Amino acid sequence: MRKKKVNVGTIGLGRIGKIHAANIAWMPQANLISIAERKEAIDETRNFARNWGNLKITENYQEILNDREIDAVVISTPTDTHSQIIIEAARAGKHIFCEKPIDFTLARIDKALKAVKEAGVKFQVGFNRRFDPNFVQIKQAILDGKIGVPYSIHIVSRDPAPPSLDYIKVSGGIFIDMTIHDFDMARFLIDLEVKEIFAFGAVMIDPNIGKIGDIDTALTVLRFKNGAIGTIDNSRRAVYGYDQRVEVFGSGGVIAAENQTPCRTVLSDAEGIHSPKPLHFFTQRYQESYRREMEAFIDAIINDIQTPVAGSDGRAATVMALAAQKSYREQRIIKLSAAKGRDEKE
Amino acid sequence: MRKKKVNVGTIGLGRIGKIHAANIAWMPQANLISIAERKEAIDETRNFARNWGNLKITENYQEILNDREIDAVVISTPTDTHSQIIIEAARAGKHIFCEKPIDFTLARIDKALKAVKEAGVKFQVGFNRRFDPNFVQIKQAILDGKIGVPYSIHIVSRDPAPPSLDYIKVSGGIFIDMTIHDFDMARFLIDLEVKEIFAFGAVMIDPNIGKIGDIDTALTVLRFKNGAIGTIDNSRRAVYGYDQRVEVFGSGGVIAAENQTPCRTVLSDAEGIHSPKPLHFFTQRYQESYRREMEAFIDAIINDIQTPVAGSDGRAATVMALAAQKSYREQRIIKLSAAKGRDEKE
Amino acid sequence: MRKKKVNVGTIGLGRIGKIHAANIAWMPQANLISIAERKEAIDETRNFARNWGNLKITENYQEILNDREIDAVVISTPTDTHSQIIIEAARAGKHIFCEKPIDFTLARIDKALKAVKEAGVKFQVGFNRRFDPNFVQIKQAILDGKIGVPYSIHIVSRDPAPPSLDYIKVSGGIFIDMTIHDFDMARFLIDLEVKEIFAFGAVMIDPNIGKIGDIDTALTVLRFKNGAIGTIDNSRRAVYGYDQRVEVFGSGGVIAAENQTPCRTVLSDAEGIHSPKPLHFFTQRYQESYRREMEAFIDAIINDIQTPVAGSDGRAATVMALAAQKSYREQRIIKLSAAKGRDEKE
Amino acid sequence: MRKKKVNVGTIGLGRIGKIHAANIAWMPQANLISIAERKEAIDETRNFARNWGNLKITENYQEILNDREIDAVVISTPTDTHSQIIIEAARAGKHIFCEKPIDFTLARIDKALKAVKEAGVKFQVGFNRRFDPNFVQIKQAILDGKIGVPYSIHIVSRDPAPPSLDYIKVSGGIFIDMTIHDFDMARFLIDLEVKEIFAFGAVMIDPNIGKIGDIDTALTVLRFKNGAIGTIDNSRRAVYGYDQRVEVFGSGGVIAAENQTPCRTVLSDAEGIHSPKPLHFFTQRYQESYRREMEAFIDAIINDIQTPVAGSDGRAATVMALAAQKSYREQRIIKLSAAKGRDEKE
Repeated sequence: MRKKKVNVGTIGLGRIGKIHAANIAWMPQANLISIAERKEAIDETRNFARNWGNLKITENYQEILNDREIDAVVISTPTDTHSQIIIEAARAGKHIFCEKPIDFTLARIDKALKAVKEAGVKFQVGFNRRFDPNFVQIKQAILDGKIGVPYSIHIVSRDPAPPSLDYIKVSGGIFIDMTIHDFDMARFLIDLEVKEIFAFGAVMIDPNIGKIGDIDTALTVLRFKNGAIGTIDNSRRAVYGYDQRVEVFGSGGVIAAENQTPCRTVLSDAEGIHSPKPLHFFTQRYQESYRREMEAFIDAIINDIQTPVAGSDGRAATVMALAAQKSYREQRIIKLSAAKGRDEKE
Repeated sequence: MRKKKVNVGTIGLGRIGKIHAANIAWMPQANLISIAERKEAIDETRNFARNWGNLKITENYQEILNDREIDAVVISTPTDTHSQIIIEAARAGKHIFCEKPIDFTLARIDKALKAVKEAGVKFQVGFNRRFDPNFVQIKQAILDGKIGVPYSIHIVSRDPAPPSLDYIKVSGGIFIDMTIHDFDMARFLIDLEVKEIFAFGAVMIDPNIGKIGDIDTALTVLRFKNGAIGTIDNSRRAVYGYDQRVEVFGSGGVIAAENQTPCRTVLSDAEGIHSPKPLHFFTQRYQESYRREMEAFIDAIINDIQTPVAGSDGRAATVMALAAQKSYREQRIIKLSAAKGRDEKE
Repeated sequence: MRKKKVNVGTIGLGRIGKIHAANIAWMPQANLISIAERKEAIDETRNFARNWGNLKITENYQEILNDREIDAVVISTPTDTHSQIIIEAARAGKHIFCEKPIDFTLARIDKALKAVKEAGVKFQVGFNRRFDPNFVQIKQAILDGKIGVPYSIHIVSRDPAPPSLDYIKVSGGIFIDMTIHDFDMARFLIDLEVKEIFAFGAVMIDPNIGKIGDIDTALTVLRFKNGAIGTIDNSRRAVYGYDQRVEVFGSGGVIAAENQTPCRTVLSDAEGIHSPKPLHFFTQRYQESYRREMEAFIDAIINDIQTPVAGSDGRAATVMALAAQKSYREQRIIKLSAAKGRDEKE
Repeated sequence: MRKKKVNVGTIGLGRIGKIHAANIAWMPQANLISIAERKEAIDETRNFARNWGNLKITENYQEILNDREIDAVVISTPTDTHSQIIIEAARAGKHIFCEKPIDFTLARIDKALKAVKEAGVKFQVGFNRRFDPNFVQIKQAILDGKIGVPYSIHIVSRDPAPPSLDYIKVSGGIFIDMTIHDFDMARFLIDLEVKEIFAFGAVMIDPNIGKIGDIDTALTVLRFKNGAIGTIDNSRRAVYGYDQRVEVFGSGGVIAAENQTPCRTVLSDAEGIHSPKPLHFFTQRYQESYRREMEAFIDAIINDIQTPVAGSDGRAATVMALAAQKSYREQRIIKLSAAKGRDEKE
């Protein structure tokens, strides 16, 4: 017997919302039923959706939550709206895929995850990089014992260019907005919790980023429960493109993922040997990983299994991000339980 | 005003026919309307097509040719049926995309191309590799003068494993079936006609291939009109996977395309440094190029422009393949006009 | 007029002493005149030296210092003897090349450097890696503005296997013995002083290293005066060989040095793509750099110019090493002036 | 008991003669005793030799042959003098190392080798590339069965710039002067004789090379006794430097040697990813191989074993070169016995 398709409504149609909507639209196991987007972007939404038949388009995401046809929602709205929508969606009995971060504070994350738990719906956080073929390969090599016991992980994560200052203002800062992917990657690959975090930060690229209270360059050091060490090297601007590398060193060897490039050509001329820059940004580099994370979410619903990225994963990465921010501000090592405690008191 | 979509029927649903059908089905500018496949494979065809709505499925390709709704056909049937279907499709006024090679003989190719010309329909041959991002990049570098005047081209084209002996028997031999892609690539990149061909061949891999009159290893040398030299290194089996490399050397440098791999991980252990094998075979390696060639075909119809791969390109590659075969058999250099003449007399 | 050759005596003929002796012996601008080595190793010393004519071999390094024929000495004895020999050699008017580190304490380093200054002799510290063709290339690229303003440096420095426990006991610990090269490299390439240091350390490889009070895995973070950030990733054992990489990231790009290998062969087989491990250890990897640093020392004497690595460079690296050790022990950020103060009080 | 050192005289001190002389001078197992060079270059010779003690320098190579102290000679004179000197040296009982090619004609080679055989002295031809670490690694991989049965070999051998027209005039042509190294490499690696040769040639780089009857671009195809196929791609000018690559493909995989570079730095900037050009020319790239071939020659004398490159190897490569030249001129496949016959008649 053929399994039922999953009917999906997407809430928010920004850059990443569009990626998710398109992936669902092409997926044999899912139907894209409806899209909610704020009023100002409704025309653009209609234009975007016209190739996919008769979608319901609404300015009010609650219409999607009230729609009995809908099985699952994908939340790609601004971060400060996530927890409220999660709570409502959970109460409406919808399975939930939510972009990262779940929220800016642990208190609100915990409320949202409580609602999810009570409703018994599926929940997945958008840590898409776990599905990138390179990092999947690293994870598998570690599981297969190819590098023995992991001793350290080094993550380079640099954007080709900073986002707008308007975006940065509401982003929660570099650790919450950007490094959060790397915190999750470190946990995912090492498969242990982090007990201590230390962060150096600087404004090296654009003084305006400093003026609005954020930094553009950061080096975060992690200490895992077993003593293993992690480093995360972030920059808001690498002129040679999106630099996304991971290297895990262990007792049996080291495995590293180099950057993906649009092609594998090499030009040798009188000046030197030249090859192409990395894929420009996340829409190119992580195209495959966005597709695969959504397939995994739909698959978890169809087969009633656990989603591969849990709410607790989203929470843990946020704990790390808040600790890194605190470490950077207070210039001292932060023990992770302390970070958690502080936030819970608030 | 939005342009009309192109309605397409595909004829033949083997390995490559399926790739084309899926690409058309997902393409915003085209509608996949109908599929013709021989009786024995009708059930498999229905199963394959069930995700794409109400397709017309038929055992008789002439139903597609007679369907007024259809604008264009894609021919992926066995080679010996191509020219007949081309002639009928052209007379029915359908635009035509035909898999390579157009036919086994120049006489039949010429008849088919004559019908195409008389009907004034678009015609494109399936030299998909021209659309591979690596080779596109090489072509562009040459056009941009990055390597100056091309002196030589070296193509390595090795399959991971030989096809079935049954397939080989009707394939026309290695030069017609396999090297034909490389002949086209050489012409495409150097942008000159070839005046002389010389081929060494051998049975190194499977004696059974020799017993049915074919070879499994070949080295073909090309001499272009301006003296530039080409080599094509073919093998029916490379245990490390699909080896598809091109290198063009010129007065200003050399540009080479290395193999594409599924990811860019590198494992260093006590034994050495290890990285992944090339993408396994053409369905992975040339996935993108199949998609792009079909987009280009549909685009040529919509905008009424020339298709990027003409019937004359299909003919020229066949002339080269026949000359290589003759050179291998007679162990002498073949001048290209001679090869053409011989065939035309037959 | 042809310049006079420099007459050299070497003091200490361990692993690195042998490298220096051989380099001097083959050098056209220098004569290897005498070798001092402790009594137990005199026979081995005679054997080692027999190819280079009539060398004077002595158990008493003061014979070399008293030898009026000698222009310069090379000190490759255990670290705790360095400062005493430096002082005596300086007073004897000999130019001095001394292996790293100059000494274990800043007080003794300062005494030695004072003697050097008073004597007006040339002095060079054995930071050979500054002369490695890879790192020279990085330095030049930075000077040429190829990467713009440096934002961060990442150094990976892993040995293929730990030294003996006996060696580790007297080595001064990982930061003084091993990381000191990396501290110098960071200063050399970024060309700024470091103001803050933070270090995480662990015993991951051999519990016996922990039992004698040292660590085998370390991650040191540097903060340069202008805010730029450095990380140094050390391990006493990388099963895939000597891992010596440096990467400097800046406003205009990133330049990285990959590991040197004995050859550039690549084997593709049914298992994957395989290439050779890095050159096994420092005698292979830094062969060229040992030769070039000694040439530079001899050249500085002949042409009466500054040596390329000053006593102050040796001191600065030791300050960093002591600060890293303190940071690791006290688990807090150390400001560099504090580290200096503490040591001076002792 | 310590073995006696070998006393060597070198005859001819051009570019390669100097490399050999220096290697012998530094070698612990050999003494460089004397150098013969023509009158015009005697001053330069004295200058070159001054670092190596009291060498005997002569304008007359027969003085070396008559010197009873001399055990072996190294012949690096113009090719047309080789066979005469070989014959005289053999009769004088000296072991002989001779630069490639032995001579321009098989008749003279055969006379020289006959004299060697009658005298019972050691004889080695200067096919230094057999000692390059990369090609040694390929040879070993083949012997170890890493690529199974070799099916084909592809050699790229391009110089950074053509030699002077004066040199080319007396060089014997590209096949004798340049490709001869590649002919030897193909035989060395595949370890079978070649039965057929076919060559395409062209003047692409400098019309003046054509005017003096030579070519600057050549593609030579080899057919080994077992059917395996070889290609040799030569050019007198690659603007990106000395391109020296070999690739051997077999039933079990493929092994390739990429170019050696002066360092392993990679610069990523806004334009792309850049790495250094290959080592510029043979004095850099083959430095190690020149040293190792001479060590092997000295070693063969000391231990009275066969030299690793025999006179018959020098002859076989010349047979191939003459056949390639003939194939290029007559534009047909040459069977190797025919080439031999033709030459012997002359």
